[in-house]
Amino acid sequence: MENRISAGVETIIPKDFRNSVRKGQWRKPTAGVCKGYAQANLAILPKSVADDFLLFCVRNPKPCPVLDVIEAGSIRPGIGQDSDIRTDLPRYKVYHKGELVAEPDNLLEIWRGDLVSFLLGCSFSFETALMAAGIKIKHIDLGLGCPVYSTNIACRPAGVFQGNMAVSMRAIPKKMVMKAIQITSRYPSVHGAPVHVGDPSEIGIEDIEKPDFGDAVPFAPDEVPVFWACGVTPQLVAMKTRPEIMITHYPSHMYVSDLLNEELAAL
Amino acid sequence: MENRISAGVETIIPKDFRNSVRKGQWRKPTAGVCKGYAQANLAILPKSVADDFLLFCVRNPKPCPVLDVIEAGSIRPGIGQDSDIRTDLPRYKVYHKGELVAEPDNLLEIWRGDLVSFLLGCSFSFETALMAAGIKIKHIDLGLGCPVYSTNIACRPAGVFQGNMAVSMRAIPKKMVMKAIQITSRYPSVHGAPVHVGDPSEIGIEDIEKPDFGDAVPFAPDEVPVFWACGVTPQLVAMKTRPEIMITHYPSHMYVSDLLNEELAAL
Repeated sequence: MENRISAGVETIIPKDFRNSVRKGQWRKPTAGVCKGYAQANLAILPKSVADDFLLFCVRNPKPCPVLDVIEAGSIRPGIGQDSDIRTDLPRYKVYHKGELVAEPDNLLEIWRGDLVSFLLGCSFSFETALMAAGIKIKHIDLGLGCPVYSTNIACRPAGVFQGNMAVSMRAIPKKMVMKAIQITSRYPSVHGAPVHVGDPSEIGIEDIEKPDFGDAVPFAPDEVPVFWACGVTPQLVAMKTRPEIMITHYPSHMYVSDLLNEELAAL
Repeated sequence: MENRISAGVETIIPKDFRNSVRKGQWRKPTAGVCKGYAQANLAILPKSVADDFLLFCVRNPKPCPVLDVIEAGSIRPGIGQDSDIRTDLPRYKVYHKGELVAEPDNLLEIWRGDLVSFLLGCSFSFETALMAAGIKIKHIDLGLGCPVYSTNIACRPAGVFQGNMAVSMRAIPKKMVMKAIQITSRYPSVHGAPVHVGDPSEIGIEDIEKPDFGDAVPFAPDEVPVFWACGVTPQLVAMKTRPEIMITHYPSHMYVSDLLNEELAAL
């Protein structure tokens, strides 16, 4: 996750930001843009497997919090006014049978009528809340990617979809851990409370210095690792089935919605 | 909702209670049984419309909080050990194309492989929490059915499913309203915070003394009406589509799950 923000982009409203993206004026990470508004992970799958995928998400709400579903035949998110899911993210990844085949700026040429789009809650929302309470997020301060790990925590399967939970980790000073649990508990639709605090081996993480995604972060002596269910989980689980086509956001290039983070804390 | 409890049934564990039901030893309302455990509304639909129904629930989590989905081909709830959805509720209602055709004790003879079962959060859970905090629930104290009203609050549609939200109403002393909001906010998967406090006409209710379901309750001078999204909503919405077959629990004869209410407050 990068943190380079152009002046003014913090305070622009999401509809205007999405317009800029659509016009090709923004192809960078979205961390920090439209401060206060929820950003979302994107997973697009064909209708033939989308119903099972929705059930998988419903059964595993901590790693897979559904903010919106765009049905086959539509391109309009319910959580973004006048928005087009094919053009309103800065960059996408396209997979055929699990293999990356393109990283396009938009999906206009490859769109099909049977595609179903899932917008899933993103940790940016709760990181904002943590920082607002004075809890520093080290990977942001250091300009690193958030460290993400595979675990031995099994998700509840649904249809063809099954697998273990991926978690994101933040190094939190011991005396702030309780506060971090309290704050993120308020956001059940963006991963909620941590799934684990402390010894990484208890959830099957062998080496905290070797994340499966993102970058390792250094620990200060008073810091403990705190693990949250991660939105990478549904992508990994879906990819395992090698779907005929799957489209996701490009890492850190998220969908910026009209939902306020604070709305997510009061559903 | 009735409140006649046999001795011992309050403290029996859900698995044992469901066994009694399955053996035909309990055909009464479930209010008050297995204290502390979450009870659930049941809606069973054919697979042909079940995927759209799940999406409807995901889009309208306040009236339609999904606790569990049993896929076509299975009869085993994920939230009740060794349980059979065809036998473990005290009574059912069966509708063909929107017309009530039977009120059987079990579904063994009419079960089909294409039926999908939805277990949805029930207000019993948050009423328990309200009462534990000293907030009296009048319809329970008076032995009446909880008053439920149609409103003009539109649900987000999904596929063939659309309609307005139904709400349940509790008369709460003015000085306890804030507490009631705080307490039920802790239970987003059992309807969460109220959707409205005060003037019923603001949400399209013409006469508070004429509920669409349940019984009217008298108001004391210091009491205001407080409205929560109601689990009757998904049933009404599904029934409007006149599905070829739909099965529900018999009113107040719920599914008693292994989930603790307090677990629902910490997802």
